[in-house]
Formats: sequence, C-alpha cells, structure tokens
Amino acid sequence: MGAHAGLVPKIPDVASGGIEALVFDVFGTLVDWRASLIEDLTAFGRERGLATDWAAFVDLWRGMYVPSMDRVRRRERPWTSLDVLHRESFDALADQFNIAGGLDENARRWCVDRWHRLRPWPDTVAGLTRLRTRYILGTLSNGGMRLLTDLAKGAPLPMDVIFSAELFRHYKPDPEVYRGAVALLATLPERVMLVAAHPGDLKAAASTGLRTGFIARPHEHGPTQSNNPLAMPEFDLAVRDLGELADRLGA
Amino acid sequence: MGAHAGLVPKIPDVASGGIEALVFDVFGTLVDWRASLIEDLTAFGRERGLATDWAAFVDLWRGMYVPSMDRVRRRERPWTSLDVLHRESFDALADQFNIAGGLDENARRWCVDRWHRLRPWPDTVAGLTRLRTRYILGTLSNGGMRLLTDLAKGAPLPMDVIFSAELFRHYKPDPEVYRGAVALLATLPERVMLVAAHPGDLKAAASTGLRTGFIARPHEHGPTQSNNPLAMPEFDLAVRDLGELADRLGA
Repeated sequence: MGAHAGLVPKIPDVASGGIEALVFDVFGTLVDWRASLIEDLTAFGRERGLATDWAAFVDLWRGMYVPSMDRVRRRERPWTSLDVLHRESFDALADQFNIAGGLDENARRWCVDRWHRLRPWPDTVAGLTRLRTRYILGTLSNGGMRLLTDLAKGAPLPMDVIFSAELFRHYKPDPEVYRGAVALLATLPERVMLVAAHPGDLKAAASTGLRTGFIARPHEHGPTQSNNPLAMPEFDLAVRDLGELADRLGA
Repeated sequence: MGAHAGLVPKIPDVASGGIEALVFDVFGTLVDWRASLIEDLTAFGRERGLATDWAAFVDLWRGMYVPSMDRVRRRERPWTSLDVLHRESFDALADQFNIAGGLDENARRWCVDRWHRLRPWPDTVAGLTRLRTRYILGTLSNGGMRLLTDLAKGAPLPMDVIFSAELFRHYKPDPEVYRGAVALLATLPERVMLVAAHPGDLKAAASTGLRTGFIARPHEHGPTQSNNPLAMPEFDLAVRDLGELADRLGA
C-alpha cells in the first residue's frame, strides 16, 4: 500500500477509462456446440441403434434456437428456460426424424443435457487463463445458470462469475441482459467488453454502451461455412482467437 | 458412455438423493474478515497518521452489519447494496472516532473496498479445491455480486458460481435467498448444502429444505471468542474445517 497515490479505489473510479471485465458469449464463441453435439449424439445413436443423420438433426436443432427465444422475447409466452426450449425442439425433431419411439424420458434428458457438456475451441482455455490474470471474466449467455455452471466446470472455462439471461428474464439481444450484467458488476458500460462471434450480439451490446470484441469462429456452423469476419470495423476489436485477444488486451 | 445404465441424466433426477452443490456463507465462514480489516486499516491509519483503535473500529463496523440489513429486510428502506450499507456505517464510525476530517472520498472508498479484498482462513483454499472436484461450489452471501466476484478472484476462493443476496433482493436469512439459489441451480433443496459458521443462517436454510454443514470458526470474532460449536446436532454435519468437510463428503 503506497501513500495517497497508492490508494487506488478498487470501486470503479468514473474518471478512469479502463476495461475491468470481459463478458463472453458462450455457444459458438467459447465452445464448439456443433461438433460436440454431433459427436455425442452419433455415439448415442450408435448404441441405441437409431440410425439417422445426426449432423442434420443438430443443425436443425440449433436452427430452432433463435425462433424459440424470440417467442419469449416478444412475450408470446412467459419466461421459459433454454433447457425447456431445447427439450421442446428436441421432441419436435425426434418426431420429424421418426426416432421418437426409441427415445424414453431418460434418453431425452440425456440428449438435451449435452448442451451442458459442450467442448471448448482449442484456443479457449489457454486464452481465458491469460485474460483472467488481468480482467474479471464472466459468461453472458442465453444458457441458464445451471447450464452455464455445468459447462464452465466441465469444459473447463476459467471464469470468475456466471451471468445468464436467466438472471434478467430476458434473452439476448434484449438490452436488459447487457445492462443487467453491467449493473451486477457495479460499474459503467464502457468498463465492460462483450466478446462474441456474432455481430448481432455485439451490436446490441454496443447500443447499451459496452465495448465489443469480435472473435472469428469460421467453423461454428461446420467446415462449409464461409465469411470474412475480420472486416468488421464497427467493433472495438476483431481477433482470430482468444490468444490474439489476450495479446491485444495486454494480458 | 455406457448402454442404458450409462445414460446418467445430468439434469437432476428426482429419484436419487445425492448432494450436487455446496453453497457457502463467506464472511467468517471462508474468509477472516476481522483480521483482514484490522490489518489493512491499521496500515492505512499508520500512513495517514490516523491514530485510533482499529480493532474496536472494525468490531463496531461489523456490529452495524446485521442492524443495517435488518432495516432493508423489514422494508423500512428499499433494496440497498452491502457496499452502500458498509459505507454508511463507515462514515458514522469515522465521525464517532473523530477521524472524519482525515478521510477524503478516495480514502473512504478504499477503506470500504477492503471488504472486497478479505483473506481466506488457512484451510479454505485447499478445502474448496478438494470439494470442487466432486461438487458444484457456489457462494451464498449477503455481499453483492461485485464484492463476491472480487473476493473470490483475489483470495482466491475456487468457486463455480457466484450467488449473492443481490440477485434476489433479499438478505439472508430471508428464505428467498436460499430458495433463489436452489432455483438457479435447477435442482431440489435437498440436493444443496449450505456451509456456514453461523447457526442462524443454517437454521434458515434448513427451514427451506437445504442440507446444512456447520463449520467451526472459533476465532471469527477474535482470540477471546468462546463457543462449543461442534455440539450442534441439529445440522447434518458439523466440522472443524473444510478439510474435514471434504473428508466427510467424500471429496
């Protein structure tokens, strides 16, 4: 502890401009949901003798994600957790793929629970470990608190705090989610950076005053996805992986 | 992954009775608030030339904690964060100790922020590290989300998730806090154990259906404190430290 100059107020000082916390989108940004789910469900199907196109199943499952949340966002139904939305979508797809008869309650739970057990991208753990030495790291995801806690524990995702849409009963990109995380961090929006692979998420965060870090995940939707993600000057940073983010943020 | 028997539903199975998560009281249970604050404020006072009895100051500061929260719990004032309650108590004590003139805004912030920087008991980090291999670990404290995040990051307290009274806008021992944590864990109350050094906290948790683990902290209030804490048959477990808790819980 120094003299007066050493008394750095750790409670945020409005006069200074630094980033205190990084909050991360999770599905696609930190974990490879597609490869994880295809691997788990393919192994499951093989054991159960359920021959189906699991890659197609997973892509359609993910495709139902945004529409199912949008019904909640438009208040067409009350707050519903992502686990329940995933289960509803799974059940509908099981009918569509003609495999419903082979799936009892335990099996359906196990399949939906795969979203709690996704694996990280190769750069995720090392990058978060570096960033965590300098910043508060949090999730900021539409997954529920238990889903994110399981995922962070298992992957593992080195995190200091778990923030979920569930805390605010709003799904991203509703502004309540970004504002809610900033409020729980007891700081200013410009002290917080959202890191995400999805421009819509980042644009919504920027609209509520957060800083934005885009990370390219060119294979989130599989090997045939194509984009040119680093040509995104509207964000504060655009990086290829979390190692580059740590470089750019001095961690 | 095994055959049917291997498909353990990770989403809680109501039929099974195991503990999934341990949630911890923090002040006194995991960290030695008294010794930490006395050490920091004594060093601060020495630098500032503020000669006062800092041990007495700290004991009175802590003494104002429960009454200040009780006014919020009785709805005599709207929800107020613990940082604000700590600041109000600090300012009142600064007047009482005749040191207010030597304390500018930055100094007061620094002193109040000491609650974000408390040090763990000697057994805390090793005990949590063991327990974390088997259980989800969370805080469940009246400290705010930022306070607990700072504290867990700095001490460090190996945690999977941060739960604060702030999320529920109720202070312990209001039942909403215990119920709220169970709901965010998406499980049953009997799958969660509160670990705390304070019987009142544990009794309130038990009333809402949680399991309870008492941990003796005979020096929380200083070397002269006396109690016989292990003679508490009303709790599921009573242990001397977190190492013994890990032994008892098979971690």
